[in-house]
Amino acid sequence: LDYQHVQVPFEITLWIMLASLAKIAFHLYNKLPSVVPESCLLIFVGLIMGGIIYGLNDRSPPVMDTDIFFLYLLPPIVLDAGYFMPSRPFFENIGTILLYAVVGTIWNVFGIGFSLYGICQVKAFRLQDVSLLHNLLFGSLIAAVDPVAVLAVFEEIHVNEKLHILVFGESLLNDAVTVVLYKLFRSFCEMPTIKSVDVFAGVGKFFVVGLGGVLVGLTFGMTAAFTTRFTKDIRVIEPLFVFLYSYLSYLTAEMFHLSGIVAIIACAMGMKRYVEANISLKSHTTVKYFMKMWSSVSDTLIFIFLGVSTIGENHEWNWPYICFTVIFCLVWRALGVLVLTFFVNRFHVNTITSKDQFIIAYGGLRGAICFSLVFLLPDFHRKKLFIAATTVVILFTVFVQGMTIRPLVDLLAVKRKRESAPTVGEQIHIRFLDHLLAGIEDISGHWGQYYWKDKLEYFNSKYLQKILLREYDQPKSSIVLLYEKLERKHAIELAAAGQLGHAPSHPSLLNDRSVVTDKKLEDTLNPDVLENIQEILARNLYRTRRTGPAYNRHTLPGETEPVEHAKEILILRRKSL
Amino acid sequence: LDYQHVQVPFEITLWIMLASLAKIAFHLYNKLPSVVPESCLLIFVGLIMGGIIYGLNDRSPPVMDTDIFFLYLLPPIVLDAGYFMPSRPFFENIGTILLYAVVGTIWNVFGIGFSLYGICQVKAFRLQDVSLLHNLLFGSLIAAVDPVAVLAVFEEIHVNEKLHILVFGESLLNDAVTVVLYKLFRSFCEMPTIKSVDVFAGVGKFFVVGLGGVLVGLTFGMTAAFTTRFTKDIRVIEPLFVFLYSYLSYLTAEMFHLSGIVAIIACAMGMKRYVEANISLKSHTTVKYFMKMWSSVSDTLIFIFLGVSTIGENHEWNWPYICFTVIFCLVWRALGVLVLTFFVNRFHVNTITSKDQFIIAYGGLRGAICFSLVFLLPDFHRKKLFIAATTVVILFTVFVQGMTIRPLVDLLAVKRKRESAPTVGEQIHIRFLDHLLAGIEDISGHWGQYYWKDKLEYFNSKYLQKILLREYDQPKSSIVLLYEKLERKHAIELAAAGQLGHAPSHPSLLNDRSVVTDKKLEDTLNPDVLENIQEILARNLYRTRRTGPAYNRHTLPGETEPVEHAKEILILRRKSL
Repeated sequence: LDYQHVQVPFEITLWIMLASLAKIAFHLYNKLPSVVPESCLLIFVGLIMGGIIYGLNDRSPPVMDTDIFFLYLLPPIVLDAGYFMPSRPFFENIGTILLYAVVGTIWNVFGIGFSLYGICQVKAFRLQDVSLLHNLLFGSLIAAVDPVAVLAVFEEIHVNEKLHILVFGESLLNDAVTVVLYKLFRSFCEMPTIKSVDVFAGVGKFFVVGLGGVLVGLTFGMTAAFTTRFTKDIRVIEPLFVFLYSYLSYLTAEMFHLSGIVAIIACAMGMKRYVEANISLKSHTTVKYFMKMWSSVSDTLIFIFLGVSTIGENHEWNWPYICFTVIFCLVWRALGVLVLTFFVNRFHVNTITSKDQFIIAYGGLRGAICFSLVFLLPDFHRKKLFIAATTVVILFTVFVQGMTIRPLVDLLAVKRKRESAPTVGEQIHIRFLDHLLAGIEDISGHWGQYYWKDKLEYFNSKYLQKILLREYDQPKSSIVLLYEKLERKHAIELAAAGQLGHAPSHPSLLNDRSVVTDKKLEDTLNPDVLENIQEILARNLYRTRRTGPAYNRHTLPGETEPVEHAKEILILRRKSL
Repeated sequence: LDYQHVQVPFEITLWIMLASLAKIAFHLYNKLPSVVPESCLLIFVGLIMGGIIYGLNDRSPPVMDTDIFFLYLLPPIVLDAGYFMPSRPFFENIGTILLYAVVGTIWNVFGIGFSLYGICQVKAFRLQDVSLLHNLLFGSLIAAVDPVAVLAVFEEIHVNEKLHILVFGESLLNDAVTVVLYKLFRSFCEMPTIKSVDVFAGVGKFFVVGLGGVLVGLTFGMTAAFTTRFTKDIRVIEPLFVFLYSYLSYLTAEMFHLSGIVAIIACAMGMKRYVEANISLKSHTTVKYFMKMWSSVSDTLIFIFLGVSTIGENHEWNWPYICFTVIFCLVWRALGVLVLTFFVNRFHVNTITSKDQFIIAYGGLRGAICFSLVFLLPDFHRKKLFIAATTVVILFTVFVQGMTIRPLVDLLAVKRKRESAPTVGEQIHIRFLDHLLAGIEDISGHWGQYYWKDKLEYFNSKYLQKILLREYDQPKSSIVLLYEKLERKHAIELAAAGQLGHAPSHPSLLNDRSVVTDKKLEDTLNPDVLENIQEILARNLYRTRRTGPAYNRHTLPGETEPVEHAKEILILRRKSL
């Protein structure tokens, strides 16, 4: 037996296997995932495993390595999030999202930091040795909403698109702020004196870290798109480039201390449309599927490790500090959302309702990023207290808020996501209105989002597409692409229905056509008629009103009841004839 | 700049990127890959890179790590080979393959070992310090044909299926023999005296290593199939299990010193039919695509590293030893093939022609496995000589034999692979004959391959399928599955043709049908006729004579000219009406 030799890959494979099997086990009991979010179940599995390891070895189980988390587990999830980001609502609400992500996070950091410092001044709590800077440092790591936790919960409750993108977008983009503040306070903690220059340098860094991330991401995204122009003869390695370039963008950003999360999102969103046009259909299926698979596994591993790492002797318990941390996290977030939304609503026609505000405040889940950051803290005598407080906040938000948010959404009757995707008609109208608004903005001299979108679209079709797309001579509008996709899908369904052998006969539909031709089949059909039928059958666009089911990260669109669809198509086709 | 932090993943990603870009670059010049095998080009790139590193650093570039090779680079290639192994020719020739793999390899090991020992006795060559055992050890690592090198070359020359499977099967299955002999001689080298018991134990080990590998592989394969029964609700992680279980089978076999290659092949071949039936279509596309992608990348990396590792100061040059190694490798392989084929041909009706024998002998390429094994040797004063000899043998076989084998195949007019897959009619007849032969064997009491195949099929449908398949109540024969696949494919093509908007009009095809109906379209078509047409259109099975292009590991089937196909289908459909 030579275990040493294969230990590393063997254990990694076993962990992934365990995570996947746990996932299967939850889904075998259909009722479980509909009540408890998967993230809670996974943390619970982790806790049990941590307990077993602790019981057997009589020492703390291994803590999730921060390097492993930031270098290997986080990127797939963020890549998946960026690649499947609904770009329209994202860009429509980019201002609000940035406000929440930047100002909101700063608000929370300072709010939590200063008020915890206030608590530390109470002599009875015996916390006077925790300085203001340490409290602010703790505030900077505990304030940021976690994209992994938010995704895991919000994807299951299907709130309306705007609400979803506000919470989720904030959780992604606050990375830049968190990185800057965390590093700033950490370096302040080690500095003997702090000059005002350092504070201003810190403010300047926001822009460098955020915009630098965007720049790195876009650079790699465009390079990826350009590379896929030349893969026509080796389709097999096409999916690889999507993964390689996004990962490189993340690593490069991290290397230069920029925001890796922002970089990978910019990369994914930037390359998506060009890559999709360049690579083959099967490559694209593979890219989508593998992204989902990878992020799903990463996400599972993160929550299990979170559970495992919780068990152990890393904690220093101090009731007041921990309780007040939880309370302040809730209160400051609620206040921040109220104040910021007040300003947002003054400048928007589509206001954010008070129900939505409540869900935004309540959906501020903390997760593995806080956890990793707290372990990255330099050693000082109260580190274990911070670890304990962070663990409690994470478990509280994931379990209590995560499990109650779905009933609350039901109770408040928060506007849900529409079940069906927009029809082609709607899409055409939306596009038409966009053009119209761009024109109005241009004439009125107001450079709003439509104006910029139009300019970007012009730049894209005039320069970018020519460089990045392989077949520029045949540019296809997204409507045509949608039409092709639908045709393909329905053709498959039709083929599947043909195999069933018992196509539904609905004579009632055809009752009014009572002309009977007794001639043989061949005689009744002259060439023109035949061609006509084939034309109609092949080009008929049917059932556009339901193009895809509601988005869910654990399934890929287009896997629901092909048989039923196909039947409906057959009926519709008959009608159309 | 914090390079240290991201170094490991960054460098790995960059290497993979380099490999992929090199692949793209070759394929941009279409003529290059048709003359020089890709493996040669990649080694060449590696040599250049090694030279650059050597020139810049003034020390040997890093040598390919044996652990990385055996744990991370080799498994994807073998998994790909096992999963896409054509099982019929493999099992039909299993006896011959095993004979070549076991007896042939032993023959080569002892042949090369003893004759090199003979060379070492010549005083003029100054090699008298190389003992017989060391020569045999060297023989054991240099004798084995390398599956990676064989695949890379043979996939591009498209020889007939039997010839391909003989060379390729041998290269895969000789792993068990190589492992045993290599470890045996290595432990003998370290033992003071060798007892005859040890030699017999070594012989017994063949069976343990080989059959143990098969057992481990089948166990994991069946578990994988069983697991995919329960993934209906989370399709996204289905592909994962295929990879996880195969990798675990490899690692487990390696852990117990069994043959990992044999294990992963048994696992892949065992699980394939059950997994394919259980998982969704998109999951299956992802599995196939990713397997191809992964093996393609691994294979590229291996050849590049092979080139890089060649440069440096690891070599001790000794003209006679190195030249005679190359000569003996060629001579003993040729002799072995001649002798073994003589026996094989006496027991078979379909004999192996002398042309085929020549290609089998000439196709004995050596590759990265030898290279890794020679670096794994315990340190002794002639190790650098062995490294030099191994490098020369690998480069000679890959460059000289690899580049000349295609012209030789053309020159000798070796029987090529048939371009088209067998038609459904042929398949039905083959299956019918199998049943017939199984019956004849049963009656005559001769337990041949058909008898066993029939028994296995019975066992499979009676027990295995019930346990391993999710939807056992609807068992589908492979013909029905093929039909479904064809229908699906052609439905997609039809949809694509519909979008083109200019379906080919061939009035000449329809000239003879001159009945003109002036009534309106609706009037001419009574419900029955309509239903009839739809029936014909949906259920028509067309163009089965070309179901797939010739096998090539760099492309997936079904990516060729959908437009042309679709046109043909349209014409055929019209004809059929």
